[in-house]
Amino acid sequence: MSDKVKNIALSSDGSAVRILDQTRLPGEVVYLDLRTREEMYEAIKALRVRGAPAIGIFAAWGLYVLAQGYGESEFFSRLDADCGYLISCRPTAVNLARQAERMRALAHSMAGRPVPDIVAALGREAKAIHEEDIAMCRAIAEAGLSLLHPGDTVLTHCNAGPLATSEYGTGLGPLLLAAERGVEIKAYVDETRPLLQGARLTAWELMNAGVNCTLICDNMAALAMKQGRVQAVLAGCDRMAANGDAANKIGTSGAAIIARHYGVPVYILLPSSTIDLSCPTGADIPIEERDGEEIRSMWYEKPMAPAGVKCWDPAFDVTDHGLITAIVTEKGVIYPPYDVNLKKLFG
Amino acid sequence: MSDKVKNIALSSDGSAVRILDQTRLPGEVVYLDLRTREEMYEAIKALRVRGAPAIGIFAAWGLYVLAQGYGESEFFSRLDADCGYLISCRPTAVNLARQAERMRALAHSMAGRPVPDIVAALGREAKAIHEEDIAMCRAIAEAGLSLLHPGDTVLTHCNAGPLATSEYGTGLGPLLLAAERGVEIKAYVDETRPLLQGARLTAWELMNAGVNCTLICDNMAALAMKQGRVQAVLAGCDRMAANGDAANKIGTSGAAIIARHYGVPVYILLPSSTIDLSCPTGADIPIEERDGEEIRSMWYEKPMAPAGVKCWDPAFDVTDHGLITAIVTEKGVIYPPYDVNLKKLFG
Repeated sequence: MSDKVKNIALSSDGSAVRILDQTRLPGEVVYLDLRTREEMYEAIKALRVRGAPAIGIFAAWGLYVLAQGYGESEFFSRLDADCGYLISCRPTAVNLARQAERMRALAHSMAGRPVPDIVAALGREAKAIHEEDIAMCRAIAEAGLSLLHPGDTVLTHCNAGPLATSEYGTGLGPLLLAAERGVEIKAYVDETRPLLQGARLTAWELMNAGVNCTLICDNMAALAMKQGRVQAVLAGCDRMAANGDAANKIGTSGAAIIARHYGVPVYILLPSSTIDLSCPTGADIPIEERDGEEIRSMWYEKPMAPAGVKCWDPAFDVTDHGLITAIVTEKGVIYPPYDVNLKKLFG
Repeated sequence: MSDKVKNIALSSDGSAVRILDQTRLPGEVVYLDLRTREEMYEAIKALRVRGAPAIGIFAAWGLYVLAQGYGESEFFSRLDADCGYLISCRPTAVNLARQAERMRALAHSMAGRPVPDIVAALGREAKAIHEEDIAMCRAIAEAGLSLLHPGDTVLTHCNAGPLATSEYGTGLGPLLLAAERGVEIKAYVDETRPLLQGARLTAWELMNAGVNCTLICDNMAALAMKQGRVQAVLAGCDRMAANGDAANKIGTSGAAIIARHYGVPVYILLPSSTIDLSCPTGADIPIEERDGEEIRSMWYEKPMAPAGVKCWDPAFDVTDHGLITAIVTEKGVIYPPYDVNLKKLFG
């Protein structure tokens, strides 16, 4: 692993999982060493560690740390309990359950072997999970970068960076890889209302990596494209349907429509595990609606909207596959027709 | 005048101009009685009273109030000085200078007449300026409402309501007129980053008038249109070129592009005085760029972006005339071709 942002790592003495507390960004860079299951649960719950791949990696390292403290007689009962406890924190997070179960299954497959051997194997497995994610993100970044040209400026939306995954992230990967190679790719960063992941996290990550980036409000992207300031839109994806329709943070579809209007290509970058071939189209993806407090008053010094104002607060939208120029996964760049080509590669 | 929001009025004893302090909205409704030229200057500077037509009306009432205190020997010298002083507060605000000059010219045309007669005439002139604006806004509202159907929901951007003008506003006029008539037209209100005029002012004005409205972040409008929640986009205009290109608050053009994508009509509502036939196209309208503090940290409890992050902060954008379904002025509804039809009506 390089000296990039380490959102998750094993502490140097191996007794704790160390995270970069994302709730303190961008104002403060605070690392926390977590040793107990309660501390780990709280860190996921409070979004100190966030992003589907990241919390999977976190759970793997967390279980390794916890397993060091289990006695021989209670080893499997405590492992099973802690595994269930961590998973229960975010029941819909696929990666969390997947990686925790992978750790548990490995341990059970070694039943009868000395506990120190099992613990050591869990350590190796957590490292493997982490490294697999890094390799996958790196492959996405490589494929994504092949679509850009030195000197290009891209538009980013939300945060699909290392903080949410490992090392390279997905949507931000090409920018980080370019910076690493001394190739200049600049970025306009949508602040991404209402939760401001772009302002708080993406801008921080890009500045940290030495990427020349400029923060804008979401509604400024149209003017940036009209003025020829943007050569590509890069976005991550929360779930992709079999036809290529892509659910992502609210605002992605609007940016894609505007990009189409101005002839700017739209690239969606994601691990293939995010493609759900059992979901025919975007219409089958439910859109989470939140309670509006993040529009009305969260963040603010004083309320910025009338008391009691009704809000509509969808957290995601679906970008129609017809608006997507190419889909980028760890297996490379995929072009339309997506219904055919996604099935061919991943079916 | 009705019992609608009185953003500007003469106090009941006639000795002060009374304003609704817009800097305290939406949290508090505070009226201020202003009697001195310094208080008036400060109110414009601090945006306690804002909106091009509104500050023109304010200056007219303000000069009437001030004129009551001028002695006979110093009448014209003080009037000229106060007039220049108020205009200097916002040198680019066309309406401010226009209405102040109108008051000054009237007074000078009465030179030699008794001062009380001149002062009384200034009071009548301020009232006329105010009532002309109300009548003009009402005509825009009538024409705009003719384009909507009972039960429609519109999308609004920024604040083109009574607070910025008088009584009906421009972009919000059809909504207020409908409410007055018991016709239900609902609204999604873009919060309008970075200055949040939609959240702070439009939502407040619409709730106040009994319009069923829902606040959204700007980047949620695309999903609202995709889901068929919006039947028209209504926006005001800061300056319209001879070909119909419309400069308005940043974000308007993006909303219009998305509306076009989903087949939702876009209506731009404005007084004809905002149409600048000497300006051939939107490319000739300069876009003010601000310093980004309103993106980075203004409003917030703590900084929401990394210290020192670069921002790009354009205050306006230009909506291409090809995206505008109809233009609405006090003279009625105008359809394309705008270059021909605007010249015909206003050339």
